[in-house]
Amino acid sequence: MQELLTEIAEAAAANPDKGNVATYIPELAGIDPNQFGIAVALADGRVFTAGNADVPFSIQSVSKIFALALALGRVGDQLWYRVGREPSGLSFDSILLLEREDGIPRNPFINAGALVTTDTYLAGSTPREALGELLRFIRAACDDDSIHMNEKVAKSELATGHRNFSLAHYLASYGNLRASVDKVLGTYCHQCAIEMSCRQLALAGRFLVDAPRMPGLVSIERRRRINALMMTCGHYDGSGDFAFRVGMPGKSGVGGGILVISPSRASIAVWSPGLNKYGNSKLGTEAMEHFAHKTGWSVFGVPHGGEGAHV
Amino acid sequence: MQELLTEIAEAAAANPDKGNVATYIPELAGIDPNQFGIAVALADGRVFTAGNADVPFSIQSVSKIFALALALGRVGDQLWYRVGREPSGLSFDSILLLEREDGIPRNPFINAGALVTTDTYLAGSTPREALGELLRFIRAACDDDSIHMNEKVAKSELATGHRNFSLAHYLASYGNLRASVDKVLGTYCHQCAIEMSCRQLALAGRFLVDAPRMPGLVSIERRRRINALMMTCGHYDGSGDFAFRVGMPGKSGVGGGILVISPSRASIAVWSPGLNKYGNSKLGTEAMEHFAHKTGWSVFGVPHGGEGAHV
Amino acid sequence: MQELLTEIAEAAAANPDKGNVATYIPELAGIDPNQFGIAVALADGRVFTAGNADVPFSIQSVSKIFALALALGRVGDQLWYRVGREPSGLSFDSILLLEREDGIPRNPFINAGALVTTDTYLAGSTPREALGELLRFIRAACDDDSIHMNEKVAKSELATGHRNFSLAHYLASYGNLRASVDKVLGTYCHQCAIEMSCRQLALAGRFLVDAPRMPGLVSIERRRRINALMMTCGHYDGSGDFAFRVGMPGKSGVGGGILVISPSRASIAVWSPGLNKYGNSKLGTEAMEHFAHKTGWSVFGVPHGGEGAHV
Amino acid sequence: MQELLTEIAEAAAANPDKGNVATYIPELAGIDPNQFGIAVALADGRVFTAGNADVPFSIQSVSKIFALALALGRVGDQLWYRVGREPSGLSFDSILLLEREDGIPRNPFINAGALVTTDTYLAGSTPREALGELLRFIRAACDDDSIHMNEKVAKSELATGHRNFSLAHYLASYGNLRASVDKVLGTYCHQCAIEMSCRQLALAGRFLVDAPRMPGLVSIERRRRINALMMTCGHYDGSGDFAFRVGMPGKSGVGGGILVISPSRASIAVWSPGLNKYGNSKLGTEAMEHFAHKTGWSVFGVPHGGEGAHV
Repeated sequence: MQELLTEIAEAAAANPDKGNVATYIPELAGIDPNQFGIAVALADGRVFTAGNADVPFSIQSVSKIFALALALGRVGDQLWYRVGREPSGLSFDSILLLEREDGIPRNPFINAGALVTTDTYLAGSTPREALGELLRFIRAACDDDSIHMNEKVAKSELATGHRNFSLAHYLASYGNLRASVDKVLGTYCHQCAIEMSCRQLALAGRFLVDAPRMPGLVSIERRRRINALMMTCGHYDGSGDFAFRVGMPGKSGVGGGILVISPSRASIAVWSPGLNKYGNSKLGTEAMEHFAHKTGWSVFGVPHGGEGAHV
Repeated sequence: MQELLTEIAEAAAANPDKGNVATYIPELAGIDPNQFGIAVALADGRVFTAGNADVPFSIQSVSKIFALALALGRVGDQLWYRVGREPSGLSFDSILLLEREDGIPRNPFINAGALVTTDTYLAGSTPREALGELLRFIRAACDDDSIHMNEKVAKSELATGHRNFSLAHYLASYGNLRASVDKVLGTYCHQCAIEMSCRQLALAGRFLVDAPRMPGLVSIERRRRINALMMTCGHYDGSGDFAFRVGMPGKSGVGGGILVISPSRASIAVWSPGLNKYGNSKLGTEAMEHFAHKTGWSVFGVPHGGEGAHV
Repeated sequence: MQELLTEIAEAAAANPDKGNVATYIPELAGIDPNQFGIAVALADGRVFTAGNADVPFSIQSVSKIFALALALGRVGDQLWYRVGREPSGLSFDSILLLEREDGIPRNPFINAGALVTTDTYLAGSTPREALGELLRFIRAACDDDSIHMNEKVAKSELATGHRNFSLAHYLASYGNLRASVDKVLGTYCHQCAIEMSCRQLALAGRFLVDAPRMPGLVSIERRRRINALMMTCGHYDGSGDFAFRVGMPGKSGVGGGILVISPSRASIAVWSPGLNKYGNSKLGTEAMEHFAHKTGWSVFGVPHGGEGAHV
Repeated sequence: MQELLTEIAEAAAANPDKGNVATYIPELAGIDPNQFGIAVALADGRVFTAGNADVPFSIQSVSKIFALALALGRVGDQLWYRVGREPSGLSFDSILLLEREDGIPRNPFINAGALVTTDTYLAGSTPREALGELLRFIRAACDDDSIHMNEKVAKSELATGHRNFSLAHYLASYGNLRASVDKVLGTYCHQCAIEMSCRQLALAGRFLVDAPRMPGLVSIERRRRINALMMTCGHYDGSGDFAFRVGMPGKSGVGGGILVISPSRASIAVWSPGLNKYGNSKLGTEAMEHFAHKTGWSVFGVPHGGEGAHV
């Protein structure tokens, strides 16, 4: 495994096309695209890393997984009255289908759906309390109390995130927000501004790995369902492509991070800031395709010998 | 396993809400909705069935799986220049995204994409030859030479399938059909009119099960990728819901059949003619949810004891 | 003419189906739907009225005409780089086409386009100054210094107008607003909260009537063009229907007012609070159809004798 | 007037940017773009022409006006149950809104709506009879029995018009065609293949001019309403722009012809084969803008002296 990760990190370093760093969040626009990290937390407790695996980055939309788990913990399946479970077929911040579907976002991983999720776990709390609970969840998942939010990134996103404000007001116009737009956006931008390294993120993702030693933060049933949503909706309008190439559920963020789950085996985090045309990490996606090919860890088949079988 | 299937068949029989039989293909409109069958072909060679598992039905869009395998065998990854791999977020016969995307259908399982697939395996052959090859593929997969097409259903669909003609001409207007519209439609409607029982369909689906004794009709890589497409796109705009509830790749047809793959374990076919709002078998979907719950065969987790573990 | 207006007012009073008062602006929801007024300001200076022609109402989107004239006076044809001139085919507050067209609203009479118009006449001024200029324009047009804004309605709309906030942030995300979203919305909601009676509105509309004694606030060319926009876009997705039935350019507001121009003859204002399915005054539209039929004042033909010829 | 037309023809000849000739109908693709003709048939009976005003061209979608008049003559306002009266905001052959609106085309001038119109006047007749009646209507309107259809153009369009076949099957799938798709398309393509010169077309358009000596083929009311539809929908998604620039109702065709009505004054035909981005004649549109500016014949104002007043 260590050999494989080193090989993957070297391939990433050698790749001249790093993708494009997202520019719409000013605080993130200046980041060095020549960074790449990967970490694998196995079900047996071992952790392997390569590259810049201990550099913290802005997890952005990867946070939607933790937010979803928290919201489901709050209201259970009632969440699904307010947000769907279908791929949208459109980009992460599209407002098109929202109009066709009377303010019910397609799924909890596009921005509109994530705003409803945030509104759900925020219900009845102050933003500070709600964000505190979210941090406690993540800290428990990765057993690391140093996880925090980057206030400057949150502020930067709040100041420039017109598209998210537009989506939030749109949801509010359909009565699909309980808290005020400002409160929801404030909480959402802080949630997105959580910073973690690949190592921390891989550890945090273990609560979605179906195996005995993993943190039991959500029930088996819910774990599987979150994985299912990551598979069908985790990469916006590149979800089908990711399922096709990698064959594992994953969730990407505009900061360049991707969390991938191999259901009974491992939680994997990869990070590189440059994005592809769907807004997902370019080198990260390629690294995961490489990883899946070598390990044979697709959920759509089992390894027949080969390198993967020996890990 | 036998006990589980019997339990599922009894639950289906007892359910008063059978869904609605599709009426747009006249030949299928008169079918008795009180039928239900299920068959499981395990990787070890055993087959279990319950209900009307030996009654042949029109497999309709389930045929798109075999057609896709055949087309990929013909042209390999070149197919993906002409059809995408993303969920459409819209109904099976929608023409909306086709216009937004210059005649490239979203995926091979919506009707527009299936027409491109048919055009691909048809290339250079007569419809009779191409359909012969498709039948040979399916007969080899299920080791049963009796599989045939229902000419009356094909004719009925050709005579009334204005929506499919509309899609085909639309593709042609973008130059995304090689053969004539009439030839493509004629072949497509015959392909959809293949009749199989649950037992036969479960056996035929084994080529997508990643296990030693299964028919090696396609490579491991391709097998996984077809499964991935079934997971993200196999149930039209109900694909996310099926992944969420059942957690296994599947492909439904408007005749009420669903083929589901448990990648290393089994091929499962279920059939009941009444449909839900997405155009997928209502009782079939519910049966598969029941089955997944009891066996724990979600690809998004492994069984921890429970009934499933002992199969 | 007086006879005709009396007849029309009586027909309106006798009509049991008054349409539905808009409920989304709380301050307007409580209005009595049994009100109807009409006023005609002829090119020769005479004014005729019937019904509640002196009751002030919230002109809402009718204000977009005055705002457009003011914005064109500021920047001339440069406005058309930021907003189109085509009917949208969609409802007044739709966000759909905005996404297809990269933040350029279809025309200045749908809400998104009106926000750009407001942003244009606001440029470089405070909202107070800009609104002062707008009021001066309207007061000059109708020669009545009592025209004012209803602060309560403006506040009510600002507090509940999530859809407009959504549109404004959407425009801002494309860089198509110069002033801040809050400033634009504040100005826009005050503009919509202007109150006028039918008599005042008919008088104010005279600057669009191509005739010698009318107020010369805009050039002939511009006058015609504003009329053209009213004809193709003045009634949202009911514009074609209004052109078909009435045959004169008009602009409606959700408060139930409609301003209609008979280019060389008259400015006509009609008001009744109940709306039809397009969000235009139901009785007002019917009254104008009646009026057009009797007078023959369609721009698409000249009267051949008949009642209209003698007015 | 003669002087003005000569000036316009010279400006057209001098303009280096002729637009692009439509290539999707092979028979029309080879036409010389350096042709320009204009003809004005005044209400008093006089006719003025300039340029290639006697060269016959394929009137294509301009035929939709005559077809609409014929269909309305057949079924009157019942037509409006099957086709709308609103601008579509989309291109002439778009299928998008058709899906949103359950197979009811937006208006009779986009292709989908024109197919319903053709189906309406075809009802109960053979295509030959129906086309004969259409030709008789046009011949009567322009008092010229030489008007005919170009069989080669009709065949060429039938053989390549996949988009129109797609639209027709789409309508059929919603039950919005009475005759068979082949019959409707055959009739439609022949209708579009009618050939006329500017002089003939200007004469034929007089039935829409509201004046004593004009051919009384339709009632005053209907005449106005057809003009209203031309104003709001006659130039596809360039209708608003044409109304804004020219201010008169008009209908364009992909062959480069435009018929424009000045309601009480004249019928005007202009032709040049090169098209602008909306699919309307580029030089023709510019010529009409020039013409409207000089004559002041906008329906949205009356001439105050100036050249227009002296015609």
